[in-house]
Amino acid sequence: MKFCCLERMKDKINTFSSFGDTGNGGITRLSLSKEAIAARAEFKKRMEALGAVVVTDDLANMYATIEGDEDLPAIMSGSHLDSVVKGGNYDGVLGVLTAMEAAETIVRDHIPHRHPITVVVWTNEEGARFEPAMMSSGVICGKFDKDTMLRSEAKDIPGYTFKDALLESGFMGDIGNRMSPEKYIASIELHAEQGPVLYEENRDIGIVSGVVGMVNYEFRVKGQADHAGTTPMKYRKDALYAAAQALEYLYTELGKLDEELVYTIGKIAAYPNIHTIIPEEVRMTIDSRHKSPEVLKQVISVIENVPEKLSGCTVEAVREWDRKTVDFDKRLVSFVETSADKLGYSSKRMYSGAGHDSQYICELVPTAMIFVPSDKGHSHCELEYTPLENCLKGANVLLNTILEIDRISN
Amino acid sequence: MKFCCLERMKDKINTFSSFGDTGNGGITRLSLSKEAIAARAEFKKRMEALGAVVVTDDLANMYATIEGDEDLPAIMSGSHLDSVVKGGNYDGVLGVLTAMEAAETIVRDHIPHRHPITVVVWTNEEGARFEPAMMSSGVICGKFDKDTMLRSEAKDIPGYTFKDALLESGFMGDIGNRMSPEKYIASIELHAEQGPVLYEENRDIGIVSGVVGMVNYEFRVKGQADHAGTTPMKYRKDALYAAAQALEYLYTELGKLDEELVYTIGKIAAYPNIHTIIPEEVRMTIDSRHKSPEVLKQVISVIENVPEKLSGCTVEAVREWDRKTVDFDKRLVSFVETSADKLGYSSKRMYSGAGHDSQYICELVPTAMIFVPSDKGHSHCELEYTPLENCLKGANVLLNTILEIDRISN
Repeated sequence: MKFCCLERMKDKINTFSSFGDTGNGGITRLSLSKEAIAARAEFKKRMEALGAVVVTDDLANMYATIEGDEDLPAIMSGSHLDSVVKGGNYDGVLGVLTAMEAAETIVRDHIPHRHPITVVVWTNEEGARFEPAMMSSGVICGKFDKDTMLRSEAKDIPGYTFKDALLESGFMGDIGNRMSPEKYIASIELHAEQGPVLYEENRDIGIVSGVVGMVNYEFRVKGQADHAGTTPMKYRKDALYAAAQALEYLYTELGKLDEELVYTIGKIAAYPNIHTIIPEEVRMTIDSRHKSPEVLKQVISVIENVPEKLSGCTVEAVREWDRKTVDFDKRLVSFVETSADKLGYSSKRMYSGAGHDSQYICELVPTAMIFVPSDKGHSHCELEYTPLENCLKGANVLLNTILEIDRISN
Repeated sequence: MKFCCLERMKDKINTFSSFGDTGNGGITRLSLSKEAIAARAEFKKRMEALGAVVVTDDLANMYATIEGDEDLPAIMSGSHLDSVVKGGNYDGVLGVLTAMEAAETIVRDHIPHRHPITVVVWTNEEGARFEPAMMSSGVICGKFDKDTMLRSEAKDIPGYTFKDALLESGFMGDIGNRMSPEKYIASIELHAEQGPVLYEENRDIGIVSGVVGMVNYEFRVKGQADHAGTTPMKYRKDALYAAAQALEYLYTELGKLDEELVYTIGKIAAYPNIHTIIPEEVRMTIDSRHKSPEVLKQVISVIENVPEKLSGCTVEAVREWDRKTVDFDKRLVSFVETSADKLGYSSKRMYSGAGHDSQYICELVPTAMIFVPSDKGHSHCELEYTPLENCLKGANVLLNTILEIDRISN
């Protein structure tokens, strides 16, 4: 087994934490902002210092490639450098830094490798500045229309589009540089779990089998607005009371399904939302995720069978969007698991509950992901933290997985 | 018994419905707006045509007085001419129009009366343009500080204050003209019920015994924001789920108390209110009203005994404000009831669930109120409606109550 360097890993994390530092332990590094461009420049400088050739494609995705010993397609690894507002120092960037560290170890330790190794930076994974999330991998993999994406407006500057940001960034390159199946035989993305499972179960490594499918609905509960002081209880049609009953129904019924199912009513709005008026209408969303299409069918059945009438109000469930479960490449997943085992790290097979660029990339190139623990499950906040030794363990699993792919593949 | 005139009542309602007509069956006549000023001018013109002397006080409250046969304090009746945005043609204005009609009947029919009769228009009852509601009667009765009120800013024009509106209105008069106990022996206010009770029970007249007391709390439910996709159900602290449980608890426990109790959770907000994030915090208000202080004590006990912990979240009940039950003058209330009875109208003794100028006025001058039905209970909306014959019945009760006070009092 080969090993990355703790000191170098620490230096990478510390250096990149300075780009967009909020002063409160986290970063704000919105896609293609000046902070993100500073991070990209550092990435380019460091990769070129290792002897990599760095190119960008038309969406400013960066590909830093170290030559292989043979004329073969490359093995790629990486993630994103952008963050949400007041995000942490691990989400995304850790996947880039561990890939850099794996590449640096290969170069410095003169580890023979037949395939080129490409460290990649995906543009605008978060969608926190320009919607949607996973924009650039989505365009490359045919999920989104490029022209529509170019018109996406920045949330921080009215009228300023993704295209404007691309043109100003200095990182827009040639469409011919895009990732494609001819150029790459495998993609491995390391990421912080963004949930509490590895932390709570005290595991070193998450072996990510895929990304769970999800369904999203909006509930529209309609009652009658009346005066809070003059309307006896028996004459009321209180949309908020009915919404609470619908919520209770949903949580009770969904709670009877598989224990790995998650479901969240994250957003609620009441109208007119005045303390002296009985709510006329309530809208609330539900997001539910599970790896099994069968379980998601049961979820849909529960949601669509919510009582149409509750406390005199009407309840309607409107399907908003959904996503099928994505399964990663079984062979690559097993390489990740074998590497973790051989390194003596505890691990757990799991599905990702969150979305990642890998869920699109896997449609073009065989893909797997590696998770490292998120301290107390915190994510997308300044408290986000993965201990250095866990980052290093992740880098070691990544390095050895890359080398195993290199050994086996043609 | 004496009787008002249906045709004149109809003309008054139609004429005043034109000031601020929305074109959809209602009015927008914010306090001291040009529409409200047009209504005031019409009021002044009509009352002067009847021989009344019209004066205003420093808050632009209008007092139109018809002389009595003796040198005695006056009997007053009236309400307000301002409305909420997209309000109806009855709330407030009907109390002014029925008082005008009672006065007109007295004048035209040469009904002898020992006391002067004053028809009054209270400024800014709704608080829809300048907060708070019942502002001018509140200042006169010592509830609000006048200077603070003068600085109240218009919701429709930034920086424009109640003082600016008063000065521009042409209706600001002398502080010496304010209502006071020396000048008035009684005040009777007619108002639409603004609730469904008279309509549902098919009664002509509400004999208003007082205004119910109320308590207002805010609940603050605190959990933990986490990713909707990556956080297993068992690790969650979902503030919205806990809030729904608190709501269910409150409705169940309050439902066990007196059947006349009303309670409303009208306002709710979840943070961060994103469909993919488990709610970190939920705030919601409760407004509860009942005439009995004993029942309100039970309400407070239920609210303050809401479980402090629900589904891993903390629940805190914060008292915001409350109001004691106001009881109107028992003798005047009985005069209203006797008048309704003698006129052969069905009636019901009730407390007002909504606030009215009379709840302040009654602290200076013996007061009672008369309710007429609100069609289907609609209020503060363009659907607000009271059939003409019910308006006339209300005017007749008002007229005969005034005459009874005149007969009995010194």
